Amino acid sequence: MKRKAVSIMKNITDYIDTAMGRAVPDIILKGGNIINVFTGEITRADVAVKNGIICGVGTYSGDNETDVSGKYIMPGFIDAHVHIESSMTTPIEYAKAVMPHGITTVIADPHEIANVCGEDGLKYMKEASKNIPLDINLMLPSCVPATPFEHSGAIFTAERTKEIANDYFGIAEMMNYPGILSCDSETIGKLCGDIIDGHAPLLSGRGLDAYISAGIKTDHECTLAEEMSEKIGKGMYVLLREGTLSHDMEKLISAVTPHTLRRCAFCTDDRFVGEIIRDGSIDHCIRKATSLGVSSVDAIIMATLNPCEIYGMKNKGAIAPGYIADIVVSEDLSLNKITKVYKNGTLVCENGKSLFNSGAVYVSKVTDTVHLPQITADFFYNSPPETFTAIEFVQDSIITKKVTACKGDKLSKVCVIERHKNLGTKGIAYVTNYGITNGAIAASIGHDSHNIIVIGDNDSDMALAVNALGKSGGISVCSDGDVIAKMNLDIAGLMSVKSADEVIAEHDSLYEAAKSLNITDKIDPFLSIAFLPLPVIPEIRITDSGLFDVTEFKFI
Amino acid sequence: MKRKAVSIMKNITDYIDTAMGRAVPDIILKGGNIINVFTGEITRADVAVKNGIICGVGTYSGDNETDVSGKYIMPGFIDAHVHIESSMTTPIEYAKAVMPHGITTVIADPHEIANVCGEDGLKYMKEASKNIPLDINLMLPSCVPATPFEHSGAIFTAERTKEIANDYFGIAEMMNYPGILSCDSETIGKLCGDIIDGHAPLLSGRGLDAYISAGIKTDHECTLAEEMSEKIGKGMYVLLREGTLSHDMEKLISAVTPHTLRRCAFCTDDRFVGEIIRDGSIDHCIRKATSLGVSSVDAIIMATLNPCEIYGMKNKGAIAPGYIADIVVSEDLSLNKITKVYKNGTLVCENGKSLFNSGAVYVSKVTDTVHLPQITADFFYNSPPETFTAIEFVQDSIITKKVTACKGDKLSKVCVIERHKNLGTKGIAYVTNYGITNGAIAASIGHDSHNIIVIGDNDSDMALAVNALGKSGGISVCSDGDVIAKMNLDIAGLMSVKSADEVIAEHDSLYEAAKSLNITDKIDPFLSIAFLPLPVIPEIRITDSGLFDVTEFKFI
Repeated sequence: MKRKAVSIMKNITDYIDTAMGRAVPDIILKGGNIINVFTGEITRADVAVKNGIICGVGTYSGDNETDVSGKYIMPGFIDAHVHIESSMTTPIEYAKAVMPHGITTVIADPHEIANVCGEDGLKYMKEASKNIPLDINLMLPSCVPATPFEHSGAIFTAERTKEIANDYFGIAEMMNYPGILSCDSETIGKLCGDIIDGHAPLLSGRGLDAYISAGIKTDHECTLAEEMSEKIGKGMYVLLREGTLSHDMEKLISAVTPHTLRRCAFCTDDRFVGEIIRDGSIDHCIRKATSLGVSSVDAIIMATLNPCEIYGMKNKGAIAPGYIADIVVSEDLSLNKITKVYKNGTLVCENGKSLFNSGAVYVSKVTDTVHLPQITADFFYNSPPETFTAIEFVQDSIITKKVTACKGDKLSKVCVIERHKNLGTKGIAYVTNYGITNGAIAASIGHDSHNIIVIGDNDSDMALAVNALGKSGGISVCSDGDVIAKMNLDIAGLMSVKSADEVIAEHDSLYEAAKSLNITDKIDPFLSIAFLPLPVIPEIRITDSGLFDVTEFKFI
Repeated sequence: MKRKAVSIMKNITDYIDTAMGRAVPDIILKGGNIINVFTGEITRADVAVKNGIICGVGTYSGDNETDVSGKYIMPGFIDAHVHIESSMTTPIEYAKAVMPHGITTVIADPHEIANVCGEDGLKYMKEASKNIPLDINLMLPSCVPATPFEHSGAIFTAERTKEIANDYFGIAEMMNYPGILSCDSETIGKLCGDIIDGHAPLLSGRGLDAYISAGIKTDHECTLAEEMSEKIGKGMYVLLREGTLSHDMEKLISAVTPHTLRRCAFCTDDRFVGEIIRDGSIDHCIRKATSLGVSSVDAIIMATLNPCEIYGMKNKGAIAPGYIADIVVSEDLSLNKITKVYKNGTLVCENGKSLFNSGAVYVSKVTDTVHLPQITADFFYNSPPETFTAIEFVQDSIITKKVTACKGDKLSKVCVIERHKNLGTKGIAYVTNYGITNGAIAASIGHDSHNIIVIGDNDSDMALAVNALGKSGGISVCSDGDVIAKMNLDIAGLMSVKSADEVIAEHDSLYEAAKSLNITDKIDPFLSIAFLPLPVIPEIRITDSGLFDVTEFKFI
């Protein structure tokens, strides 16, 4: 697998000369408190950097000194698993959001855009990740489509996966564990190379043995401490997740012990840019872990050294000679005031602000991805029987419950419409506790195939909301025949081309608009429907192919 | 670098089917207490093995069960750094000695034979390591010769090192740290690939920063806890050594903490086969560590998972799904009664006995390596001045002291004679506290160039002892004109072609004979002289080029 890492063998004599004092360092960080991820200690020392590499940690002085006395010096943080698309911004805007929080490397799975745009989506992510200080290590999505129960914009075969795997950092999360357990050759055939991420919520016992035997090494879907302990005990690395919707840390933290620590890292998986800017990313994971009793140094180890070990990044994740100079300077261990972030020895952020930008990226092959004709209200005509199976949302979760509803109940109608190839497929179902009145919400974000999802209490607003998305896709809120809020997501119907600030403002407007529709405040009006088409999350889902019982693993 | 490891991608469906219960395991170890190197726990479980790979750890039953209830099940032990030559036996005899002690993998540096036979020596070690159950991962020696202050049998250039590096597991211990620190291009040029072992006794501060900046990742020469802490804190892995001569564990153990544990492994470096059979190898390191307060499980982690992480052996070092079935079954955690050892799922040792053998290995290019004419007593004629610099041995150490002697003192004469190319070079010096009377000892083991070393109190016994070695080399003890003991070391003058039992018996005879010569019992008569020509160990050494002051790093 390709590594986006500076080779330490380049300019090796420069490093030696710098350490020995025969050459002048490019930077000396003077007098900071170094977080030593190897010994767990915090010691006062100077850090000498040359050509983007740390050459010495000890007593160094001379030109190019930066006084960091009293401050804490630690390695750049690493997000071990993230879908950048879920930030709703482009890679450059994402980088400008996360880097001031100390994140210098991410393992990114472009699973969402791949499900819409196929290899064109991967190429876009590659192109858009260039010339950005953030190290974006792109994995090759293993599940395009995520399941055979929906229509995605592309299909990645095992054959093609093997052909292009070497161009990526590893194989991304293998969500299709039933395919692995049943030895499906198309699924097994995608397992190539050393780094294969897993995704196996609640899998245990023999099934877990089989899944791990296949060579899958990580899991970021643990939601129970016992689950995490079993997975670590069987050799997996566990990535503790704090995303926008999934908050797993609190339930998992008791499984972090002096022994298991080295097998743990942090990830955000899916995290909206507004939350990143407001609450942080991996720095937030560190704060959360320490608030739950993990020592600051141990939490930093989980955010730095550990993901480097997991993903084979040999000279990253420590403040030590020979390591890439990805360095975070913080006022204190709470990380609420990160004053400087260095990437490859270059100062890239200062006092919460990024100091970089990048040129425009050619995006034509990943725009205009919604292929639907104009629709009318009768598109949603549906006549359910007296009693029928419906969906109940669960508070603060993407899990749903399968319930029985009666014809007279106050229900919201939900519809998933294939949007990639205008196949004409759609699935209609009902939700018992969404509570929308006089309106509809439509979106081109509907995990993981990202067909159009629309929910409402009347067919005409639903049609209006879908039509409002246009060719580019996005999110629309309609009421009484008017489009009352709209956000364009020009890239694959998933990401905005606008700045993070603009994305946040538009996003706020969407929530403002949704509030006027009497949607229950126990449910996030947008995230709830965004994950409703994902037929691997219990108990019941709706895809463009119909209502799906995840427990029984079949259509209803 | 090449890996001698079974690919887990082979027969992947077999593993899955076995885990799921659809295929019959080749072996089920039933009801043992599993040492879990990931969680640090010991839990009762069954282990299912298929095609040499562990597929399941849980509840498995069926045909092929082996009852191990009440016994402890752990991964095979790994010697992270060993010169097999120092066992004085061939690789097959070495394997038969270590494997009953639970060692299933070694990282072997054929540094000794390379200094005598060059690439022919490496080829022999490769050939002789085939068809042996022990995984012998051969490193490419980086220091042939070890220093420019002696004449070795071969020279490995940087250019040639780069050409052949990919045929080896990594680059072996870079002893020439002055060459690194001074940016000598021939030395730096040998640093290629991911795995580069170090050797930097007492190096610290900026010198250590420089050495590590060059990409060197391990050190097995620590003798002080503070030295070890600094090295780990700067990113090195430390291999705690218990060899025949070097016993470092006791002084280092306080530097093993919950944080540094993962950066530590065990090695034997140089260990005679008799000691292996009597006291063990890495199992001895585990016992030693636990006797010093480390928990049994932590000591086992240092002997298994950790070296696998250090050397990138991804599916070795744990009892977990997908891992190579290198398994040790022990009656208890003292490891004094290891009942079974499995390698790649095959039972290779039982109750202290190895169950394997191998065919003869073609050895012609590594024999008859002593190229000297017959010599006579006047070869050693030497007339020292009234006062001169002499060597004092230090008890239980290979360190020596530089002292001043007078002409009338009772001294032993020592001589190192070039033996590879019959260059005619020799160095003569005097030892103050060896105490040999009426005799001489000669050997073709003289680290690291392995020239002939001879020590005695009279020139005629010294000449006899050297002549007695013949073309093949070995060790001889002479007294009053008679050869009173002799051991042939046909392979490079370093290793016997005989069985371990025969080697031990001959070795015992040598010591018996040496006893009769009134050598002080504070000094090992053979090991003391074996390391006397190594001009990197303080304070004073003798090579075929003369008396060498290691502190000043120049000839006297």
